[in-house]
Amino acid sequence: MIEHADLFGGLFLSAAGGGLLLPLFVIFVSAKLAAEIFERLRQPAVAGEILTGVLIGPSLLGLVTPNELTTALAEIGVIFLLFLVGLATKPADIFRVGGRALAVAVSGVIVPFILGWAVMLAWGTSSIESIFVGSAMVATSVGITARVLGQMGLLSLDVSRVILGAAVIDDILGLLILAVVSSLAKGNIDYLQIVTTAGMAIGFTLLIIVVGARTVNRIRPRIERLKVGQSYLIFGLSLCLGLALVASYIGVAAIIGAFLAGMALSEASENTDMPHQAEAVTEFLLPFFFVNIGMQLRLDAFLNRHIVLLALVITLLAVLTKLAGCGAAAWSMGRKKAIQVGMGMVPRGEVGIVVAQIGLGLHVITDGVYGVVLFMAIATTLIAPPFLTRLFRGERPVDEEPILPITQIS
Amino acid sequence: MIEHADLFGGLFLSAAGGGLLLPLFVIFVSAKLAAEIFERLRQPAVAGEILTGVLIGPSLLGLVTPNELTTALAEIGVIFLLFLVGLATKPADIFRVGGRALAVAVSGVIVPFILGWAVMLAWGTSSIESIFVGSAMVATSVGITARVLGQMGLLSLDVSRVILGAAVIDDILGLLILAVVSSLAKGNIDYLQIVTTAGMAIGFTLLIIVVGARTVNRIRPRIERLKVGQSYLIFGLSLCLGLALVASYIGVAAIIGAFLAGMALSEASENTDMPHQAEAVTEFLLPFFFVNIGMQLRLDAFLNRHIVLLALVITLLAVLTKLAGCGAAAWSMGRKKAIQVGMGMVPRGEVGIVVAQIGLGLHVITDGVYGVVLFMAIATTLIAPPFLTRLFRGERPVDEEPILPITQIS
Repeated sequence: MIEHADLFGGLFLSAAGGGLLLPLFVIFVSAKLAAEIFERLRQPAVAGEILTGVLIGPSLLGLVTPNELTTALAEIGVIFLLFLVGLATKPADIFRVGGRALAVAVSGVIVPFILGWAVMLAWGTSSIESIFVGSAMVATSVGITARVLGQMGLLSLDVSRVILGAAVIDDILGLLILAVVSSLAKGNIDYLQIVTTAGMAIGFTLLIIVVGARTVNRIRPRIERLKVGQSYLIFGLSLCLGLALVASYIGVAAIIGAFLAGMALSEASENTDMPHQAEAVTEFLLPFFFVNIGMQLRLDAFLNRHIVLLALVITLLAVLTKLAGCGAAAWSMGRKKAIQVGMGMVPRGEVGIVVAQIGLGLHVITDGVYGVVLFMAIATTLIAPPFLTRLFRGERPVDEEPILPITQIS
Repeated sequence: MIEHADLFGGLFLSAAGGGLLLPLFVIFVSAKLAAEIFERLRQPAVAGEILTGVLIGPSLLGLVTPNELTTALAEIGVIFLLFLVGLATKPADIFRVGGRALAVAVSGVIVPFILGWAVMLAWGTSSIESIFVGSAMVATSVGITARVLGQMGLLSLDVSRVILGAAVIDDILGLLILAVVSSLAKGNIDYLQIVTTAGMAIGFTLLIIVVGARTVNRIRPRIERLKVGQSYLIFGLSLCLGLALVASYIGVAAIIGAFLAGMALSEASENTDMPHQAEAVTEFLLPFFFVNIGMQLRLDAFLNRHIVLLALVITLLAVLTKLAGCGAAAWSMGRKKAIQVGMGMVPRGEVGIVVAQIGLGLHVITDGVYGVVLFMAIATTLIAPPFLTRLFRGERPVDEEPILPITQIS
């Protein structure tokens, strides 16, 4: 039955299964309203946008349900966010802090994994279930911290670069742990495949960091000579999508590929308009990412007092273990910076959620524990931004690169 | 079964049913490659992007199949295109050419409808099927012409404004014709509903044109005082999505709502960065729209020589009737401008496709006639841009508003 509303407006509306525009509008506008309210309360906009997802999602109001489209926009949104962060990060910046980032990542993987596993075992859950919860506690969702620091204009700080570098390494380590754990759950460990995956992930990352920027710089004159409109933006978006695709085929997160694409372009895009334009695309898509995280929360799992308590314990543990693990590895930077780094690694966001989903898919965790991990992933993501805002208040950018600070237009 | 490639990269990849990024990458990059090749051959980029859809779509290579996501991105893309065109169009510009636009629209609806219907009847098709083909020939896809003129920096010409105004009116008329025809096909005509729809569509359009810009100008200081980052862009995107939504509920095309939103913002956004930023969003999404049009083509319908001949006849008729109908109504502007207006109204694009889809859905047209209408819609969309480029070559923008000309970044 074709409604009038669908006649002309509806070539795509109907194809996309009815109201395409309604969820877009509701998500975008409510997220931005929440961001405005949070900014006025001097709270981070990110937290407001995630809470919007909790509020309008299936848990509470049920105005919007995550569907293929909102989920896809969410993924594209976070891909562009990391691309934008990459644009503000030169390979040399990451190399300079590489050793420390490695230490932060490794320590920030080991401490949460072991303590998460141990506490779950002590709580009485099965061995494999405990290992899965430990794996979910390893994940770092770099998007949240990157967004907060980007909005404060502080991506050029050394601390920010340690966090970004550690998050990239963390993603590779998390991938490997998850590969091992998934194999365990299925009963057979394919060591060869795990080693191959590790090799490809590390090789790809290093390759792009080492030769990416140089290659882009070399072909820069050719990009400028292209006849197609907005050639720089088009090239940037193509590279971003392309490396995100390669990364996800290799097994690293698509966002890591996007971050590397941004880094490869960081030098060539200085003094161009491209970062500013990529920012506009991100502004449109990113609310879908934050709202989508909030929409994943399922409050109905929390009718059980036992589960609520476990969720609170695991969340507290998730915060403390990252803070301690990453903070300890960054201790030589001084106490304040160590805490900044630790807090920057706290959000588990979408990466924690996906580990939980995999566990559920493999039938190794119960619905209750799934709810606990979801809660931990979303709660850590909500807890970190206000602390980050406070911990970084008063910091000044190191150099004068106004690439990412969100500028008001007047 | 969870693949390694989906582990971390795959929170959303998996939710979106596997390869989300692959079709995105293939569509975006191949469209832009084609645009580059066409620009070098001094052909319009738009035609290259549509032909990309024919090439990579199900008809030929089958690299990508239209799915919910690509279709949704296509719709959002054309919505932002019309928003951008609206930003370059002040309400007064449209009012000035209002009478002529109305004449162009009405004449450009009547001539193709009657001749299309008559020729189909003479060809021996059924009465209702002939009426449906006539309706499909009424539709104008303003996006194609707007893109070509926008890329040439010529949206401020009087001719361009006549085309834009006529396209808006054309959409309302087409909506009404389709409502009548659909009722006919179902056997009962609900006059009250048709009158209501007409009233709402006209009322909404006039309301936004008359009070939209004034309201936006009045609240402009408040938008600037918002705390949320990029407040102007956020407000613009919200208004665009909101009016597109209202328009599609009322029954006008969502793109008309987006165009009206742009027009309401056109004065307030002068000297701001917003049009430039909205352009970046459009550059990312618009290739999906053009490629999606091309992907709709089904060449397998053309194994029948009878159908091929009919498709060619109907396409030729579609071009000539718009050219004659709209050109005659614009004749007082002079021969050259009349032809420019006529050619600007030729593309049927997505609007023609949707009429054909509705006819198929109501079981009033055969697969063969469906193929004919699809061919006509896509062929007119491909034919117009090269002619437009030639007809407008050498024209200069009236005033110095470098809002839409695509600027190379260096």
